[in-house]
Amino acid sequence: MTASLGTDPARTTLDLGPAVELVSKEEGHRQPLAPEFVSAEDFSPLEVAYDFGRVRREDIEAGPKNIWRYKKLLPVPSTVEQIPNTEPGGTRLVRADRLAKALGLKTVWVKDDTGNPTHSFKDRVVAVALAAAREFGFEVLACPSTGNLANATAAAAARAGWRSVVLIPKSLERAKILTTAVYDGDLIAVDGNYDDVNRLATELAAEHPKWAFVNVNVRPYYSEGSKTLGFEVAEQLGWRLPEQIVVPIASGSQLTKVDKGFREFGQLGLVEASPYKVFGAQATGCSPVSTAFRNGHDVVQPVKPDTIARSLAIGNPADGPYVLDVVHRTGGAIEDVTDEEVVEGIRLLARTEGIFTETAGGVTVATAKKLLETGKLDPDAETVLLITGDGLKTLDAVENHLGPKATVPPSTEAVSKALGY
Amino acid sequence: MTASLGTDPARTTLDLGPAVELVSKEEGHRQPLAPEFVSAEDFSPLEVAYDFGRVRREDIEAGPKNIWRYKKLLPVPSTVEQIPNTEPGGTRLVRADRLAKALGLKTVWVKDDTGNPTHSFKDRVVAVALAAAREFGFEVLACPSTGNLANATAAAAARAGWRSVVLIPKSLERAKILTTAVYDGDLIAVDGNYDDVNRLATELAAEHPKWAFVNVNVRPYYSEGSKTLGFEVAEQLGWRLPEQIVVPIASGSQLTKVDKGFREFGQLGLVEASPYKVFGAQATGCSPVSTAFRNGHDVVQPVKPDTIARSLAIGNPADGPYVLDVVHRTGGAIEDVTDEEVVEGIRLLARTEGIFTETAGGVTVATAKKLLETGKLDPDAETVLLITGDGLKTLDAVENHLGPKATVPPSTEAVSKALGY
Repeated sequence: MTASLGTDPARTTLDLGPAVELVSKEEGHRQPLAPEFVSAEDFSPLEVAYDFGRVRREDIEAGPKNIWRYKKLLPVPSTVEQIPNTEPGGTRLVRADRLAKALGLKTVWVKDDTGNPTHSFKDRVVAVALAAAREFGFEVLACPSTGNLANATAAAAARAGWRSVVLIPKSLERAKILTTAVYDGDLIAVDGNYDDVNRLATELAAEHPKWAFVNVNVRPYYSEGSKTLGFEVAEQLGWRLPEQIVVPIASGSQLTKVDKGFREFGQLGLVEASPYKVFGAQATGCSPVSTAFRNGHDVVQPVKPDTIARSLAIGNPADGPYVLDVVHRTGGAIEDVTDEEVVEGIRLLARTEGIFTETAGGVTVATAKKLLETGKLDPDAETVLLITGDGLKTLDAVENHLGPKATVPPSTEAVSKALGY
Repeated sequence: MTASLGTDPARTTLDLGPAVELVSKEEGHRQPLAPEFVSAEDFSPLEVAYDFGRVRREDIEAGPKNIWRYKKLLPVPSTVEQIPNTEPGGTRLVRADRLAKALGLKTVWVKDDTGNPTHSFKDRVVAVALAAAREFGFEVLACPSTGNLANATAAAAARAGWRSVVLIPKSLERAKILTTAVYDGDLIAVDGNYDDVNRLATELAAEHPKWAFVNVNVRPYYSEGSKTLGFEVAEQLGWRLPEQIVVPIASGSQLTKVDKGFREFGQLGLVEASPYKVFGAQATGCSPVSTAFRNGHDVVQPVKPDTIARSLAIGNPADGPYVLDVVHRTGGAIEDVTDEEVVEGIRLLARTEGIFTETAGGVTVATAKKLLETGKLDPDAETVLLITGDGLKTLDAVENHLGPKATVPPSTEAVSKALGY
């Protein structure tokens, strides 16, 4: 990687708003803003460093009802809302009293991110990646993906008038191919598994200086988009932090960024910096971070995923160690749940709150239940559950569990009888 | 039907906010608010009449970011936002410059109602129906449906802790069964077609005084929910009306209510009562209203539907004549498009704006194109397109049209070559 990768020589000034530098997560080495993701000094991930200046609630409240209201806290141009892009965020925070009662918690809020343009939180990170990529002079938006990220990348590129290159394993389910192909980008099926596709993406990023792989070469900017989940929860609670939050873990990036969002709001005086606990949720079939937490390890041993929660099935989570840091620092915990519990989690949220989530959301709900049963979640503390994707995309997970209560002839007697009237 | 149908004898006062009476659409006969839908005087549909009093922009702006901000303009209790229900609405109005350019229109806005809780505009009408049904003392939320309405009804009942009864034809696609069954209401498959199911619903409504069939016995309240589409468009445009709006036609109710919403905003001085034209969109395979418009008829001849746009496939649209009234009064027009054009409409919206709509949205986009080509839509006038449902629910419509651009081995050369680099 070099600082000129993907940069446009004609562009003289880089406007990434409050972002000033990149800093390595391990040893804090600082370097100029560039489309790079690993420190050449200590080989740890690079993260965006900021000079926020003064940010007031009124500035945010006067902004658009999407993530760009937080532009002064993101690595995006100061005019970001005027540039073609998607406008994710502003999704509902639902008071979930029936779910709370079913779980045995006093107060539960569900952050329902299924309301985003392509119905997952990935729209947040991709929109930030696109905004930064444009500043760096990239011209193609790309990603390796098996689902939500493919949808979000292809849709955002379409909206911006960019070419997209989305790489998928050729065995991907037909539905996920259709929901990406419809945006008419360059969808390429690769004869290999997801690991092959991922490796290919890193190689392609090096070969094509105009291709921004959202989760590879512009990852430091991309991942900052997840902070907006934390920002929105705090603002929607009336400018305060919750006491407990349960977050699903795939790469682990989202969990660390929600925490970062809470801390930044506290540091800027936008909320009182009250204590909160961050809890992590994994599927047992892919639970390397949960296992490390349970065993008291600092390092995360990679696993081979085998779970219906495919959007969380990252066997070697890049941010695993940082997740452990956040959970330990805040006094939270991590748990994992079986595929059976995942399906029951999906069904519990649907029947109590009318919200149909994908398997990742089932993991979050089921993990909250388990954390409560094991005494790790405080039943009296206010709890937020992050529901980050849509059940319409993982119908196969519930396929064998659901159906009509009865099939009857078209008569009122038959219906009444079937329902016990 | 009697005024006591479904009413709770213990309830002494009925709070439906500004609603004061029901009035028959044909001859204007007035009667007290009740769960009735047809006038016993002239057999025409009943509509809610209001005494709005004073409604100010500030009151609305201070409300929640969902349809309940318009509670002073809906037949719902004054405390509606505190009662368990879904909170639909507040969906995005997207400036669609790339779509505008592709169509040859100067300014296009897309109202993207896929962001609702179950991803269609039906969440709006069902939420209002539930709020009114609770006031009338009903205890079960019910509907006959083949898709979006089933999802919305089952989800809203779940959220409110009500029992739901959803009747579907037993031949319904598996995906639509799953997306309703997940909410754990009483889903009943009926051995018959949709007409059988619909007739059965009307019979059941008469037999079960505690069952509110959202689109039958509480239809006057239910249908008012569609006004919120008009309200939101006007508020999101900065408190003004658009010059042209294109609305899909199923029963026709939505189109008439969007118009009613615009007129109420004008009458209340919330917007300047500037002229606007309402355009209707149908699929050629179910185009009774478009046919009547083309032939200059006042009455709508029923047809047997045969189109991929199943959410619009109502062969005998109850509000057809009123649609013709609105379109004639405002100077609009109605057109219909082939199934091939519907698919192209879906794809055009996806590739230009990153929004994946169901077939009904494809009808709207394709009809806008046709109306422009035939000189009925003014290319220089500001145009709003209503996108009322989600592409994830009608994947079968695009199934045979989409796929990866290429399948390649996992090598950078193979990818670059496939993409012409």
